[in-house]
Amino acid sequence: MEPGSKMLEKIQKALTTRSGTMRELLAEALGMFILMVFGLSSVAQVVLGRGEFGQHLSINLGFGIGVTLGIHAAGGISGAHLNAAITITHCILGNLPWRKLPAYLIGQFLGSFTAAATVFGLYYDALYDYTKGNFTVTGPTATASIFSTYPAPYVSLPGAFFTEFIATAMLLLGILVIHDERNNGALKGTQALLTGILVLGIGIGMGMNSGYAINPSRDLPPRVFTAIAGWGMDVFKAGPHWWWVPLTAPILGSLAGVLIHKLFIDFHNQPVLESGEEKGQPVKLASESRKQRNN
Amino acid sequence: MEPGSKMLEKIQKALTTRSGTMRELLAEALGMFILMVFGLSSVAQVVLGRGEFGQHLSINLGFGIGVTLGIHAAGGISGAHLNAAITITHCILGNLPWRKLPAYLIGQFLGSFTAAATVFGLYYDALYDYTKGNFTVTGPTATASIFSTYPAPYVSLPGAFFTEFIATAMLLLGILVIHDERNNGALKGTQALLTGILVLGIGIGMGMNSGYAINPSRDLPPRVFTAIAGWGMDVFKAGPHWWWVPLTAPILGSLAGVLIHKLFIDFHNQPVLESGEEKGQPVKLASESRKQRNN
Amino acid sequence: MEPGSKMLEKIQKALTTRSGTMRELLAEALGMFILMVFGLSSVAQVVLGRGEFGQHLSINLGFGIGVTLGIHAAGGISGAHLNAAITITHCILGNLPWRKLPAYLIGQFLGSFTAAATVFGLYYDALYDYTKGNFTVTGPTATASIFSTYPAPYVSLPGAFFTEFIATAMLLLGILVIHDERNNGALKGTQALLTGILVLGIGIGMGMNSGYAINPSRDLPPRVFTAIAGWGMDVFKAGPHWWWVPLTAPILGSLAGVLIHKLFIDFHNQPVLESGEEKGQPVKLASESRKQRNN
Amino acid sequence: MEPGSKMLEKIQKALTTRSGTMRELLAEALGMFILMVFGLSSVAQVVLGRGEFGQHLSINLGFGIGVTLGIHAAGGISGAHLNAAITITHCILGNLPWRKLPAYLIGQFLGSFTAAATVFGLYYDALYDYTKGNFTVTGPTATASIFSTYPAPYVSLPGAFFTEFIATAMLLLGILVIHDERNNGALKGTQALLTGILVLGIGIGMGMNSGYAINPSRDLPPRVFTAIAGWGMDVFKAGPHWWWVPLTAPILGSLAGVLIHKLFIDFHNQPVLESGEEKGQPVKLASESRKQRNN
Repeated sequence: MEPGSKMLEKIQKALTTRSGTMRELLAEALGMFILMVFGLSSVAQVVLGRGEFGQHLSINLGFGIGVTLGIHAAGGISGAHLNAAITITHCILGNLPWRKLPAYLIGQFLGSFTAAATVFGLYYDALYDYTKGNFTVTGPTATASIFSTYPAPYVSLPGAFFTEFIATAMLLLGILVIHDERNNGALKGTQALLTGILVLGIGIGMGMNSGYAINPSRDLPPRVFTAIAGWGMDVFKAGPHWWWVPLTAPILGSLAGVLIHKLFIDFHNQPVLESGEEKGQPVKLASESRKQRNN
Repeated sequence: MEPGSKMLEKIQKALTTRSGTMRELLAEALGMFILMVFGLSSVAQVVLGRGEFGQHLSINLGFGIGVTLGIHAAGGISGAHLNAAITITHCILGNLPWRKLPAYLIGQFLGSFTAAATVFGLYYDALYDYTKGNFTVTGPTATASIFSTYPAPYVSLPGAFFTEFIATAMLLLGILVIHDERNNGALKGTQALLTGILVLGIGIGMGMNSGYAINPSRDLPPRVFTAIAGWGMDVFKAGPHWWWVPLTAPILGSLAGVLIHKLFIDFHNQPVLESGEEKGQPVKLASESRKQRNN
Repeated sequence: MEPGSKMLEKIQKALTTRSGTMRELLAEALGMFILMVFGLSSVAQVVLGRGEFGQHLSINLGFGIGVTLGIHAAGGISGAHLNAAITITHCILGNLPWRKLPAYLIGQFLGSFTAAATVFGLYYDALYDYTKGNFTVTGPTATASIFSTYPAPYVSLPGAFFTEFIATAMLLLGILVIHDERNNGALKGTQALLTGILVLGIGIGMGMNSGYAINPSRDLPPRVFTAIAGWGMDVFKAGPHWWWVPLTAPILGSLAGVLIHKLFIDFHNQPVLESGEEKGQPVKLASESRKQRNN
Repeated sequence: MEPGSKMLEKIQKALTTRSGTMRELLAEALGMFILMVFGLSSVAQVVLGRGEFGQHLSINLGFGIGVTLGIHAAGGISGAHLNAAITITHCILGNLPWRKLPAYLIGQFLGSFTAAATVFGLYYDALYDYTKGNFTVTGPTATASIFSTYPAPYVSLPGAFFTEFIATAMLLLGILVIHDERNNGALKGTQALLTGILVLGIGIGMGMNSGYAINPSRDLPPRVFTAIAGWGMDVFKAGPHWWWVPLTAPILGSLAGVLIHKLFIDFHNQPVLESGEEKGQPVKLASESRKQRNN
């Protein structure tokens, strides 16, 4: 046996957790980290490269690929929510015990925050060169939008709120139909890819008004990071006070997406209930496609 | 059990329909809504973003992704026609009873109309900013083409009619070969993705003359919406009087596509008929790949 | 039963062929037609749209999507060669009887020629508008390259010949490894998609020198069409006399690709031959993945 | 039997090797050759085509497609490392005997070097036209970056080292989660495609600082080739002395990626060990998905 493997075995024994909740926290953290490193770095490359190293489509592709890989990373353990709005929706629908909510949110926050720090490290030299060291939220060399979303100048607050609401509803509709095994879902093992393509589509069509956060866990942790790392409290003041929209609109949009799917498809597509066995079961959110370990 | 799930169960009981036709109408409506929100919003982002948020390829990708997701949404229930030309072709070929035609067309119309209204809402601020509130069909800040198709200035009416005819024939040829299980069809569960790629290809090669409507249900409902929402009756006068072409040419193109496939491939690729069992069966349009619930 | 289906049944009886060779000719013709309509129309849209409706990548995508759909169309019947160089390679290797060669070549020629005529019809108005009716092979409004390939001004004849040779060798290497079931081939039912991605890659990296014909059946029939349709004999004189290179270099490249694959992978990856049963069998060109009907 | 097949059988007998290590060397060589021809040629087309034949995204796609095809070529025989950093990681983890390391590295070197020579041949005319025969590493017509990576002018050496480290860690994280069959890996037979998409994502987001070598075997052999082929020893001096970073940072990044995956996912996701049967086994690097022939 190799010495390398012996060392790893020792580390393994010391670090392995038997707690399901801890495993879910770690899986959400890693999945979110992967999603966000791919996503944020693609924004950085487009902004700091002044269009020479990618265009808007690159950002859409970057987030799409990040989502696909993040789902591969966490899907078998936590269900790969990678989105606080989706986790909260699962809790409301009874698919996930409320007591697990903090672990999911903390995992997502840590993964997203660490990814922002990683991309900051990756592009520190380029940021410095582009801004001459002056990290700003607005102006000709604004760079805060590499990390978090900000609304376009032309858009009203209700318009931007509505955009985040609809875009998240479309996200959930897409996820639900991709995973709907009673209907015409995607082939097992290709669902992560399809979900990435879904996010690509959202960025291509619904990204201009407000940067398609569609996810509190994608938006808040990098915003906190930028507040600390040199952009200051302007990141919370800009928009104005835009920061709370990506935290709230996606939750409402997520619930709306589930409801629309149920009203148009799922309610009418149930197997006939037999003898009441399933009566006590909570309403599922595409849960057939996820391993649920609630312990 | 969670209170949220109880509420949903009550809603479910009240709203579940046992009518197959109603289920098909709802499925076509949702599938069409998804297709059109992704498609139209990508046009809006390219036009209103002045090329900063996507280029022509983005529109082609937006419609392709919309088609893929729309098929995942409706495929198991209505067959996901999402196109009046395809529904009418199914009726002519005897795959769908004529009495079901209205439900399909109404579902497609409602989904498409609602999607146009949704994208109008999403981009109302941007539309206002771009046009200064003057919604026009022609001129430097024309925006009607975000919603419906219009022919290019250089193209003649026969040329544009022929384009829609050929592009729809290619659409049907593509759908038929992707779903042809006796020949070399795509893997089950990946057919929706392949159909999206097919539509991407049509947009890349056959979109310049007339905007590749290739689908009455994609074109008419948003046109009616724009007539109501501020663009006025010009949307029917432009072209001139272009609006009837996307309603008729795709039906002829769809039938031509089926015929070409039968003449070149399908007629010669039949299993030998045994004892006449199958004699009374209507000619199929790739129907093996769809669940048919005709009740 | 519907009247439409009755009519189709009558047509079916009259037109069905029991000849395997005729079926292969028809399949190659339709597959080639699909490939070429998608491919050539994407070139037309880029050239005639002056970059507003697509860029070089669109052409690469157009041919890739065309290849994928063409393989879905013909794969189960003729093996979807869609390329005279591949058909000739199959004959040389003993996978296809030489007597079948004419049917394959004729089918490919007819499909490719008809596709060129179709795209000419699609874009006749745009061609006229772009050229003011003066169809030329060279000059500022040259349009012959929409249909057939021409070498770049900077490239020498040996350089362009070598490019077509290498690009076709890479094409064959790609096809062989995608279909190599003893090694690490792509999932069945996704091979057509992967082959399209392969052709996309060739266009992205090996298309600049000579337009990546990599296929006599892609190049000669549209060239003959343009000679007839108004561009005249210049299409054979340009290059100078370039036209014979896409007919010859791909055949040599195709054989080289097969040989390289055998030397590096296939010879060493054979199951142990038992009792000599397989001794008399010809060397296969990824033939496990294709139905062979040699009658 | 055809004469062509007889000739091939004779060649086959003479050239077939029974040595597992030799087969792995040949597989790594061919896989690496394919990867690099697609990758390098896409850079050449973008640089020498002055943006008319592709943009930065084309390069990202070119390497992604190359990786996919290279994995199809070598995956069943050598595991398709195609990257010295991955091979060394396998040795450190005990998945590959150290005595096999030279064969893998030599195969990768030869494939990569030959690919550089092939792309040099493909684009010799264009190189000459672009540079007027003056092959340089810097300046307005610099062309060395077609073959090997160089850091951007704004980036510090630690910044560029960190970029290569992180990008390779993301590469390994991606590979591990795509192949993680106990978790939520990609469908078998689509993993090569997903790995190509992963590399596309790295190029889109982490390519601007240092050209995303993330692989000693991608960077050193073409650098040696350019030193010989006319660019001279400047290829080792530029950066300054950048050449050693793509040889070292990826190895550390690869190990970091494996460790992160184990800490966050894999250690906690093991089946319960039964009776100690598996005790003596080395720690695996996604090895379930690869045939291992260690002889």
